Amino acid sequence: MKALIPLSALALIAACSTLPRPRPPVAEAPPVAEPAPPAAKPSSGEQWLFGSAEASVALRQDWNAIAAYVEAKADARPNASVVLASRATADAPAFLACGDRPMAAVFDADETLIWNMGSMGYFARTGIGFDPAIWDQWEKTGAGKAVAIPGVKDAFKRIRAAGVEIIVNTNRSNENYAGTADTLKAAGLGEFAHGSTLYLRGDAPDGSGKDGRRAMISANYCIIALAGDQLGDISDIFNDKSLTPPARKALTNAPAFDQMWGNGWFILPNPLYGPSIAGTMDDVFPPETDWAPPATE
Amino acid sequence: MKALIPLSALALIAACSTLPRPRPPVAEAPPVAEPAPPAAKPSSGEQWLFGSAEASVALRQDWNAIAAYVEAKADARPNASVVLASRATADAPAFLACGDRPMAAVFDADETLIWNMGSMGYFARTGIGFDPAIWDQWEKTGAGKAVAIPGVKDAFKRIRAAGVEIIVNTNRSNENYAGTADTLKAAGLGEFAHGSTLYLRGDAPDGSGKDGRRAMISANYCIIALAGDQLGDISDIFNDKSLTPPARKALTNAPAFDQMWGNGWFILPNPLYGPSIAGTMDDVFPPETDWAPPATE
Repeated sequence: MKALIPLSALALIAACSTLPRPRPPVAEAPPVAEPAPPAAKPSSGEQWLFGSAEASVALRQDWNAIAAYVEAKADARPNASVVLASRATADAPAFLACGDRPMAAVFDADETLIWNMGSMGYFARTGIGFDPAIWDQWEKTGAGKAVAIPGVKDAFKRIRAAGVEIIVNTNRSNENYAGTADTLKAAGLGEFAHGSTLYLRGDAPDGSGKDGRRAMISANYCIIALAGDQLGDISDIFNDKSLTPPARKALTNAPAFDQMWGNGWFILPNPLYGPSIAGTMDDVFPPETDWAPPATE
Repeated sequence: MKALIPLSALALIAACSTLPRPRPPVAEAPPVAEPAPPAAKPSSGEQWLFGSAEASVALRQDWNAIAAYVEAKADARPNASVVLASRATADAPAFLACGDRPMAAVFDADETLIWNMGSMGYFARTGIGFDPAIWDQWEKTGAGKAVAIPGVKDAFKRIRAAGVEIIVNTNRSNENYAGTADTLKAAGLGEFAHGSTLYLRGDAPDGSGKDGRRAMISANYCIIALAGDQLGDISDIFNDKSLTPPARKALTNAPAFDQMWGNGWFILPNPLYGPSIAGTMDDVFPPETDWAPPATE
């Protein structure tokens, strides 16, 4: 029997730990001797992200915006990349220089380029929140069962037509690079090669941090766009574990960073897992907004 | 004792009915005679939308895009609005003509311009999913306890500077117009006047449909942008109750509609309530993506 771990443990894959993910209530089991499996039902977040027209549209808007940005930037050929230099801070920001290196756009994979329907559906059907051993199998064998996020294929055509290399920087394990390349290819996103256009956890010494890999990629490319479903896809500076959710949010508002969103740095919606799924009642509903209905009855 | 209704009943306010919203599991009550209130904990969706840096950034990106679009469009002064004509279909699309009417941008309010921290926090703290009588009180008395969504205030400055009128089209009740205008003002979004820049449910005969109000607004304005957290904020054509979630999603991909997203029609993320929160396991996880770990042990 494997230990079952909340889905939020996906956050490990996703660069930062977080709180356990609430599971939706399940229908009552019928009164038989053998306990029946819980009735599978998608969560609200899964219904919204994977199932709704609204999310499909929102993602297409986002990927259109990324493609338009990359086209315009490729045309302008910038001198500086959008990767923060190693000792940059909100007060002393600095970006890597580009030299004459070719241009690249660097994207996270899971819930950025692909929706992991196969593994997420399996976890939902079985009532398993998250199991890292099963996720490891998913990385190895999931090809064909993950789908390209709406808008990504069109965006990739435009980005490639603009002469910009597409590079994937994912926290999937580098031991499973072949399965991940197969998964991206089967989703219709093209060929990715480990160490040149595909970087994974284990490729640099900083574990699930992605700055090390961004530095490796920057040795060969001028990175003109970064996109992902969490801030660690932009810079590890946002994943300092001492930051509360409100402090982390405030850091994105620092003037040096604020002007980057939608302007080289892009965040896509994922209400299911990752460091964004955190925070107490007071973090999420600030006390100054406390309200109750007036006692009039 | 009031009847308690799931939060998804907010969908009524939001133009379309939907499935009951799953609630997160609550901590076990201590073994005392008087049952303790359930331990309040924000749901994953609430943590993401209201609490996370990621959602804050995603919304700022969206509102920057809306403002940039409106600025460009105002400059070009279009002949046609982005409001579908009354008998338009995906196969025979048609948009209202503008004549020489002044330009306007029309936005939904709840979870589009403002986050309803006060009422949502109250529902979460008390364990009430949703109660329409309490929501009615919220419409009347919530001013100061809802917050402007990140990016909206800056976008409003730019849209107003471009000479475009901002009009709110909300499914809050027109009996509570004053409370809603107060709420928008207290959130820093400016003055709105019922029947000229603020339209509510009850203003037109089609109930929670918004096409009637869009037609009323179009009598006075050329609408160059529509934005909301659900497709009913764009056209009631998407809220035909016979549409399954996949069919509804497919309708947004019809060529006539597909080119409008991010191009006059804008959808913002809301994984908490509304017609987007619907769908069976098969709707959300299509059978062709079914996967299970290989039986290797």
